[in-house]
Amino acid sequence: MCGIVGIVDAGGVSFPLYYALYALQHRGQESAGISTFEGTTLYTHKAQGLVAEVFDRHTLEGLRGNAGIGHVRYPTTGSKVPENVQPFNFRYRGLDLSIAHNGNLVNTAEMREEYERRGQIFCTSADTEIIGNIIAEALRTSKSMEDAVRLCMRRLRGSYATVALLNDTVYAFRDPLGIKPLCIGKFDHGYIVASESVAIDALDGTLIRDVRPGELVRIDENGLSSVQIATANRRAHCIFEYIYFARADSVIDGTLVYDVRRRIGQGLYDAAPVEGDIVCPVPDSGTAYAAGYAERSGVPFVEGLMKNRYMGRTFIMPTQQQRERAVRIKLNTVRGNLKDKRVVLVDDSIVRGTTSRRIVKMIREAGASEIHLRVGSPPIISPCYLGVDMPTRAELIASGKEVEAVRESIGATSLTYVPLKDLVEAIGCDERNLCTGCLTGCYPVDINGEKCYHCVVDYVAGTHQADLSTFRTGKQRT
Amino acid sequence: MCGIVGIVDAGGVSFPLYYALYALQHRGQESAGISTFEGTTLYTHKAQGLVAEVFDRHTLEGLRGNAGIGHVRYPTTGSKVPENVQPFNFRYRGLDLSIAHNGNLVNTAEMREEYERRGQIFCTSADTEIIGNIIAEALRTSKSMEDAVRLCMRRLRGSYATVALLNDTVYAFRDPLGIKPLCIGKFDHGYIVASESVAIDALDGTLIRDVRPGELVRIDENGLSSVQIATANRRAHCIFEYIYFARADSVIDGTLVYDVRRRIGQGLYDAAPVEGDIVCPVPDSGTAYAAGYAERSGVPFVEGLMKNRYMGRTFIMPTQQQRERAVRIKLNTVRGNLKDKRVVLVDDSIVRGTTSRRIVKMIREAGASEIHLRVGSPPIISPCYLGVDMPTRAELIASGKEVEAVRESIGATSLTYVPLKDLVEAIGCDERNLCTGCLTGCYPVDINGEKCYHCVVDYVAGTHQADLSTFRTGKQRT
Amino acid sequence: MCGIVGIVDAGGVSFPLYYALYALQHRGQESAGISTFEGTTLYTHKAQGLVAEVFDRHTLEGLRGNAGIGHVRYPTTGSKVPENVQPFNFRYRGLDLSIAHNGNLVNTAEMREEYERRGQIFCTSADTEIIGNIIAEALRTSKSMEDAVRLCMRRLRGSYATVALLNDTVYAFRDPLGIKPLCIGKFDHGYIVASESVAIDALDGTLIRDVRPGELVRIDENGLSSVQIATANRRAHCIFEYIYFARADSVIDGTLVYDVRRRIGQGLYDAAPVEGDIVCPVPDSGTAYAAGYAERSGVPFVEGLMKNRYMGRTFIMPTQQQRERAVRIKLNTVRGNLKDKRVVLVDDSIVRGTTSRRIVKMIREAGASEIHLRVGSPPIISPCYLGVDMPTRAELIASGKEVEAVRESIGATSLTYVPLKDLVEAIGCDERNLCTGCLTGCYPVDINGEKCYHCVVDYVAGTHQADLSTFRTGKQRT
Amino acid sequence: MCGIVGIVDAGGVSFPLYYALYALQHRGQESAGISTFEGTTLYTHKAQGLVAEVFDRHTLEGLRGNAGIGHVRYPTTGSKVPENVQPFNFRYRGLDLSIAHNGNLVNTAEMREEYERRGQIFCTSADTEIIGNIIAEALRTSKSMEDAVRLCMRRLRGSYATVALLNDTVYAFRDPLGIKPLCIGKFDHGYIVASESVAIDALDGTLIRDVRPGELVRIDENGLSSVQIATANRRAHCIFEYIYFARADSVIDGTLVYDVRRRIGQGLYDAAPVEGDIVCPVPDSGTAYAAGYAERSGVPFVEGLMKNRYMGRTFIMPTQQQRERAVRIKLNTVRGNLKDKRVVLVDDSIVRGTTSRRIVKMIREAGASEIHLRVGSPPIISPCYLGVDMPTRAELIASGKEVEAVRESIGATSLTYVPLKDLVEAIGCDERNLCTGCLTGCYPVDINGEKCYHCVVDYVAGTHQADLSTFRTGKQRT
Repeated sequence: MCGIVGIVDAGGVSFPLYYALYALQHRGQESAGISTFEGTTLYTHKAQGLVAEVFDRHTLEGLRGNAGIGHVRYPTTGSKVPENVQPFNFRYRGLDLSIAHNGNLVNTAEMREEYERRGQIFCTSADTEIIGNIIAEALRTSKSMEDAVRLCMRRLRGSYATVALLNDTVYAFRDPLGIKPLCIGKFDHGYIVASESVAIDALDGTLIRDVRPGELVRIDENGLSSVQIATANRRAHCIFEYIYFARADSVIDGTLVYDVRRRIGQGLYDAAPVEGDIVCPVPDSGTAYAAGYAERSGVPFVEGLMKNRYMGRTFIMPTQQQRERAVRIKLNTVRGNLKDKRVVLVDDSIVRGTTSRRIVKMIREAGASEIHLRVGSPPIISPCYLGVDMPTRAELIASGKEVEAVRESIGATSLTYVPLKDLVEAIGCDERNLCTGCLTGCYPVDINGEKCYHCVVDYVAGTHQADLSTFRTGKQRT
Repeated sequence: MCGIVGIVDAGGVSFPLYYALYALQHRGQESAGISTFEGTTLYTHKAQGLVAEVFDRHTLEGLRGNAGIGHVRYPTTGSKVPENVQPFNFRYRGLDLSIAHNGNLVNTAEMREEYERRGQIFCTSADTEIIGNIIAEALRTSKSMEDAVRLCMRRLRGSYATVALLNDTVYAFRDPLGIKPLCIGKFDHGYIVASESVAIDALDGTLIRDVRPGELVRIDENGLSSVQIATANRRAHCIFEYIYFARADSVIDGTLVYDVRRRIGQGLYDAAPVEGDIVCPVPDSGTAYAAGYAERSGVPFVEGLMKNRYMGRTFIMPTQQQRERAVRIKLNTVRGNLKDKRVVLVDDSIVRGTTSRRIVKMIREAGASEIHLRVGSPPIISPCYLGVDMPTRAELIASGKEVEAVRESIGATSLTYVPLKDLVEAIGCDERNLCTGCLTGCYPVDINGEKCYHCVVDYVAGTHQADLSTFRTGKQRT
Repeated sequence: MCGIVGIVDAGGVSFPLYYALYALQHRGQESAGISTFEGTTLYTHKAQGLVAEVFDRHTLEGLRGNAGIGHVRYPTTGSKVPENVQPFNFRYRGLDLSIAHNGNLVNTAEMREEYERRGQIFCTSADTEIIGNIIAEALRTSKSMEDAVRLCMRRLRGSYATVALLNDTVYAFRDPLGIKPLCIGKFDHGYIVASESVAIDALDGTLIRDVRPGELVRIDENGLSSVQIATANRRAHCIFEYIYFARADSVIDGTLVYDVRRRIGQGLYDAAPVEGDIVCPVPDSGTAYAAGYAERSGVPFVEGLMKNRYMGRTFIMPTQQQRERAVRIKLNTVRGNLKDKRVVLVDDSIVRGTTSRRIVKMIREAGASEIHLRVGSPPIISPCYLGVDMPTRAELIASGKEVEAVRESIGATSLTYVPLKDLVEAIGCDERNLCTGCLTGCYPVDINGEKCYHCVVDYVAGTHQADLSTFRTGKQRT
Repeated sequence: MCGIVGIVDAGGVSFPLYYALYALQHRGQESAGISTFEGTTLYTHKAQGLVAEVFDRHTLEGLRGNAGIGHVRYPTTGSKVPENVQPFNFRYRGLDLSIAHNGNLVNTAEMREEYERRGQIFCTSADTEIIGNIIAEALRTSKSMEDAVRLCMRRLRGSYATVALLNDTVYAFRDPLGIKPLCIGKFDHGYIVASESVAIDALDGTLIRDVRPGELVRIDENGLSSVQIATANRRAHCIFEYIYFARADSVIDGTLVYDVRRRIGQGLYDAAPVEGDIVCPVPDSGTAYAAGYAERSGVPFVEGLMKNRYMGRTFIMPTQQQRERAVRIKLNTVRGNLKDKRVVLVDDSIVRGTTSRRIVKMIREAGASEIHLRVGSPPIISPCYLGVDMPTRAELIASGKEVEAVRESIGATSLTYVPLKDLVEAIGCDERNLCTGCLTGCYPVDINGEKCYHCVVDYVAGTHQADLSTFRTGKQRT
């Protein structure tokens, strides 16, 4: 999971990109980077660390120009090397291209194999480099980014929300199923595309709409234009963005994430009403769900767990006891709120179950008489191949287990997951337009050894038909 | 405002002190320090920065011994010099004394004047050095810390919760009015005193009770003992600890802070019921109040403001617009939750009014139709001289202004403060046992130019009567 | 200019590589990196900064295995991006390849053009990526690194001393002209290749010999073997390594660099004897030359300039006066040694002339009556295209100027350069085996717009003939 | 050992103080600090670290005013706590006093005891705090710094070169024996006092003269004036400043340190001529000595040891072998210069002998046939109590040992120390005006358990007579 942003603005872009990345920091804390362009020069500054650590006034002032892109990267094991820090810059036949990307490709191995057969070498382990190769392949015979992105969409399988800077023009495109989010905003003197609308809010811009699945958006000093490169007969928006990943104040495809979570919370009460004294969220991700539950049930919303807001990077402790303690000081129980109470504990999801088990234990030790765990998602039973850093089936507590077995393992008095139907209803879109792979084990794209929605093949045909669209001139600045 | 802790434990104290300071980090982010003692050596490590930055495994391993104290310091203007970083170490006639202190003395000038007349010089601008001088004065004629602390209590005017390490013994005492909090906890093999009970929780200890106003607690390898040095005919617990400063999961004088805030929130509805669509807290300090309000009113608790959890230290921005933007990315409005809504906005207090004004403006721009601001404290009309970093009367928005004028200045549809009576009732103790200086302009100690509760003089006499108490042997470890 | 090292040692290589890089730090301060291999995993740690900043005990302990390579990088303008930090890792058809390289290719543009025509994209601006491409091209049809390096030598034009780690085997090769240095050393349980012999000294190893121009060396757990890939009818060792770049305690091609410089210093006296009171080196690079001059002339060696040994990174000063001062505190005159003295000032070379002019001015202001500048190299009149970071002709003070004009510009009483003949003699090898491009404007490889030694074409033919050599088994460890 | 500086200059002092401290960095690397004064405010910035690390442009711009003092501190064991970082600020009866000090008092214990009996407590372990106490004692009855410094000189026993900032006036004084150096310089618009003249050079100022032993110098916006507070019948300049501590380019009491060392080197040849092939300095401290030896003997000056110029802070190595290696990479032998050579190895002094032993071993392993160690000081047989960080007698290799035994322990072919007589002659002042405690075991001040020059008592009487001097007006600026 990563966060991306692209801005063209007459007043310079490095500071706006910096603020936008700050607002997207929850999507990745491993590294941050910005590329901008002015005159004939591509400027890039990127490094490992948080946005606030990577950039200072001096480096931002050096990132000149009115067009640029930015990226924050999520830490995934084994890939913490400097060359994986995005944006990636490619030089190809006199063109300076900078790319940043959120998502995960599933045909990487074949693609690499194919390019390597031709003699291509890969400098990194990142998907972004494959995207760069396809763009280069297209540009060998055509000068058009439209052709290049068309080739990408034909050849790439998986999720990819991408921004690219080609000289002073920002391009943005999203895979034909729209798996990862990407939206468009407007300023007085420019446009922005970003993973989430909070980046637009941070700059006081106006959210226009989402980038459409299969659409290519182009922003330059003349404004914004777009072409539909591919259309599929269904969409596959990542359901986990709504459940956990996106910020609650983000609006995805016209829907406020907070509202989804609150409605799920309401539905959790309807699905399994229980007598409780307090509704207690697991901070911070369970709060909106708990608010919804409290609202519907009339049971008071009361915090029973407090997060330490000052956790910095801490060193590795010498003993096991100290390592456990280090975990403990991050989360404290509010004993007075829990003692002798029937607690309805609300969380967004259960992945491995280790955190839930620890929290249930803490609350029980604080004196709660009953702990009714209510979960804002159905059981997670399958891995994600499309961009969310999730464990294997063996590590997923709900994989191949009945709910009762999960409850027992976690130690809760009762356990209720939200039914998929209710979750989809809360999101407010057709289930066939959502990727529910982690909940159903059936994926929108063909993955070796996994079930696949059979309809997926259609989108390639759709792509061809969409090729006739032409660039429409964007809103002009005066 | 600062945080202090003292621990004696048979298993070593540097790591426990570190975790305790972590739990108290909200009480001060400017600097952190730990002193310990083993054999004949006092070990100290302290520096400017957060707890996580000041210490690492190597420095903690070097802080040897089974007795020690720690301190986190709140940033106050003009005092960011290394010599003000606590604990302070004093060497006096072969004794190694390390002191850490939370509070503020109001007779500093006279005390300094007096000591300077005798030739004493001061190395720092900190009150702690004056405490050291008084202890030294007492120790000239007596070897007893009891005598030294008795002299402190006679001579110091103001608030002081203090921990001291004299060789391998930890002492802790609290001013006779008990202005600043200090509590006692127990482990399997040791004892702890700390500003707040969350430090005890972080170490899995058991909260025993608060240190009594005017009490001196002594902890060594034989256990804990105590002597009552002074008694006053009333107490003056800082009311602002309940309102804002203490962590909600702390228990002060037997009362859970969260519970106080939640009851105030309930009372806010009773005091000024209003038709609202949502109850929205100002994060994070307004959350418990808002939960109480929602519970009593039946209006749903819904977050309308989101805090960016990844704000690091940021540099000074070159332009005013960018500085404003830097503030903005810390807090975002959840437009979908606010648009066309009648919002009951709940905060803990209003100091200068600038933050409230900005937040009301943001919520209005997000489309709220009405904004009813409910405040968990009465108007703050006077400065604090006793340890809370508060501005002068000229800067306090409510000082000399009617509530209606404050409302208009802030731009809210309606504004209600909690009445002092209700606040006191929520805290559950007699008003005469609280310091309400910032709310009433009448202080528990004599401050030049300010009104004073006339009863205060009594506590000095009380001190004398209490001198008869003797040390009681603490619980023995086996 | 960069420094490279490769080690195979039965006792682990990360700490030895670290020390070796420390010894090579003078060859590059911009970044540092190490790759090692164990089992099936390539481990890499690299970052911008000095060796001491990039690595700590924790990172070194994570670099597992008995084979590895390392690199330090010289700062060149416009290339300070994380992806240029070496070693570079390439993944190609199941092989993990890590490469580090010292030198500069002159046919980069053509090579890039050719690969880009085929669709290859480039992630970096570094030559190393081109080397990776050629290796990949060869490995498409052959599994042999020998074939891959043969292709490199046919296709690459310029200087390249290269180390590569392919699984647990270290390869090292040097361009057929041997422009950049590379030598071989031996430990009790392993072998090392490094840019300079000081890296071998730092590890208490034994210098065996230099890697021969056009030779490929292979080190694995069975020992060292080698094959001659190409031979040229002449060599082109960089003369500037002897003059300035290499450490004085390094041995290159059997010759101690200190000895070369000392003999040049002796020759400087013979070439232009002058009556002087003291021989004063420009520290630190002029010291060996000055020692030689003093020895031959009998004029005492006395330091007239003192370098501040504690210069850290300093910030940009706000005013011009302060910027000049910042330069000044790095170098101070020893007035008492200079006043009324006839000073023979000895430096290794003059590039732009700005430093020499400043130093002459300082010495004159210190009261010297005469300043006879003696320079350990002939006039530098042409740029370097083969790895030394040198300015353009327009910036070179001696380019197109008579010596007398240079003297006048610098302000010295007299100025003598060492004649090329004497310099070559001091190095002790045939002039046709040295690259003297910066001194003569005639280069050993074909560079657009520059003169070239006509004999150069031979080395390609030589390469073919050398192909017949076979791998010889290295010394076995017992 | 520390470095101090005080500047009054019409153009502001923070940047000049910064540069001066840079030039004095060799006198202390543990911490750095600057105090300045403007209007009614004392500004201080100080922290642990090198000058380049402690200050940046922002902090220097905040140090306002035309008068200030600075300090660099030498690391001594057990005292690395923030409160020992100088300058020290004292507040006393409305006065802001900042003090920085180089030296060591020997009657600290009595002084502390005396002040503690009166009730004074000490915040630090630094002598500077005692000086502050004496000044405060004097200022109780007099407003005159002259009286305060007179009291200091009567009461303090030991070495003290001190700068003090009292509002906008800089005071500087030196103990009556002049143990530690302190000199005066002039700029166009101001004056400077500094530990060494290199600080004046760094600012392009003119060295006027040394501060006289027992003299008080006063600098304010009207210029410089002075009063002689005390005179002794002899001086006791630290001989170790000439031998090792001062920079070679410094001028102390009119004598260039480099010149002293060079003359000692010449004398070393005269004292013990030996047939040698090369004269090799131990870098960097032996260079000037070796140059003198080479000059007199005609044996060529050739470096046989190379120091790594890029040693940064390195971490603690996990194994003994690696720790040894870490030492080794700091110093490398130039084997080609040493092999089969009779080496005259020249160093400034031998303290513990461990470094000399290691170096002799390295040179022998490099193939030297003979190693004649020549030392620029007599044997160090006694500790220093007056400011040089030296070990106890038990650790001093020459204490209680014949030269032959030292030679054997170190492993040299021959060993010659410079006779004290020759050393004194090279310095060019009467032996009775030098402190030779570490070489003779006889000290200029009374130290418990040590022999003392009996003449020392006189200086107190001399002080009284000098009290009649009055302030003489300094050179006025126009």
